[in-house]
Amino acid sequence: MPPGDGRPAVCLLSGGMDSAVALAEARAAGWRCHALSIDYGQRHAVELAAARRVAAALWATDHRVVRVDLSALGGSSLTADEPVPKDRPHEAIGAGVPSTYVPARNTVFLSIALGWAETLGASDLVCGVNAVDYSGYPDCRPAFLRAFEALADLATAAGTERGARHRVHAPLMACDKAAIVRRGAELGVDFALTHTCYAPSVVSREVVLACGRCDACRLRLKGFAEAGLEDPLGYAS
Amino acid sequence: MPPGDGRPAVCLLSGGMDSAVALAEARAAGWRCHALSIDYGQRHAVELAAARRVAAALWATDHRVVRVDLSALGGSSLTADEPVPKDRPHEAIGAGVPSTYVPARNTVFLSIALGWAETLGASDLVCGVNAVDYSGYPDCRPAFLRAFEALADLATAAGTERGARHRVHAPLMACDKAAIVRRGAELGVDFALTHTCYAPSVVSREVVLACGRCDACRLRLKGFAEAGLEDPLGYAS
Repeated sequence: MPPGDGRPAVCLLSGGMDSAVALAEARAAGWRCHALSIDYGQRHAVELAAARRVAAALWATDHRVVRVDLSALGGSSLTADEPVPKDRPHEAIGAGVPSTYVPARNTVFLSIALGWAETLGASDLVCGVNAVDYSGYPDCRPAFLRAFEALADLATAAGTERGARHRVHAPLMACDKAAIVRRGAELGVDFALTHTCYAPSVVSREVVLACGRCDACRLRLKGFAEAGLEDPLGYAS
Repeated sequence: MPPGDGRPAVCLLSGGMDSAVALAEARAAGWRCHALSIDYGQRHAVELAAARRVAAALWATDHRVVRVDLSALGGSSLTADEPVPKDRPHEAIGAGVPSTYVPARNTVFLSIALGWAETLGASDLVCGVNAVDYSGYPDCRPAFLRAFEALADLATAAGTERGARHRVHAPLMACDKAAIVRRGAELGVDFALTHTCYAPSVVSREVVLACGRCDACRLRLKGFAEAGLEDPLGYAS
């Protein structure tokens, strides 16, 4: 991340591990972080509770949740009633576009972040996407982010009337999950506050167990193992 | 519009005049039209009822409404509790970005349309934006639409894995309001079904009166006057 010098940035925060570490990077670089979570009708709504905990723990200036009902459009096992794939080998997780892909998700999320940025007078967006463990999502690649920056300049009054140049920062782009775990630990991120699982068991309001078997859990656990650290989360299996 | 030959297209439909005529253009060109309305917490929610009527009258294949709560982000007199400006001269309406501008609105709307297009296997989006009477919105210009097409190719599995080339069609881009009125009349659009006003008076479920004084009403009335046609809508003043 370039130095923020107290300037405002809108930080997409899912409640997962990656966006938590990205927010911590932005805070450490001196940005005034406005955390934004999108409630898109996902099945793992416990992520939003995790996002609230992470925003508070990492001293975000504020935190908004915007609801967008992408489930009305179908097309993903994260929002539809299809089973989440489990126990897939790591080679399969990285190959092709998985069924958990939500159509145009990052385009929608960044667009909403851009709207908030415009009302805040911010031209910097921060997200936790990374290309190494990106699970085959096309909208997690650097070329996509550069295209979004070009669009943002043309889409906004700030860009067209005041010459603002938008930047989408993805400080973890070159990191694999192990590097993200290590960097998060350095920055003091409490990974117990984060949530990753696509198919969690909600035991009570305070106790949520991750399945340990969906693609997201498997990538997370592999990251902790490779980093030589223990995942503080509770797992059902 | 290029010929559709029965291919699917996602058509953004606000319930206003422009998007109704754009949908009629797409239908007339042979596209299979999937109409999409976005409920973004706007005050003139009667637009959504108009969108339903228009989609049915113009034989859209289906019609979805996706709710996205942009009012959580503030920044516009269409979603916040600021007064809608009235009785502004036509020169003022075209100059600068008005307070009714919703930050990044078309970026958000097109992103959601792109998500639905991906689940439908469509790579064509249709919208009613036009550059002549565009009321100063930066995200209604051809350069913005071209940038969105480039983004869409990079954002989607269709674009990155199957080489799909996305197009955002704005068949009314070169039209002023008078030309839109004339073209709509040629295509048999029933303008009585459409809704335009930013500050309508809801008399009953069936009777909604337009104010006749907000920027949107003034542009609409000017268009009908210049086209030499009578606006079938009811006005309060």
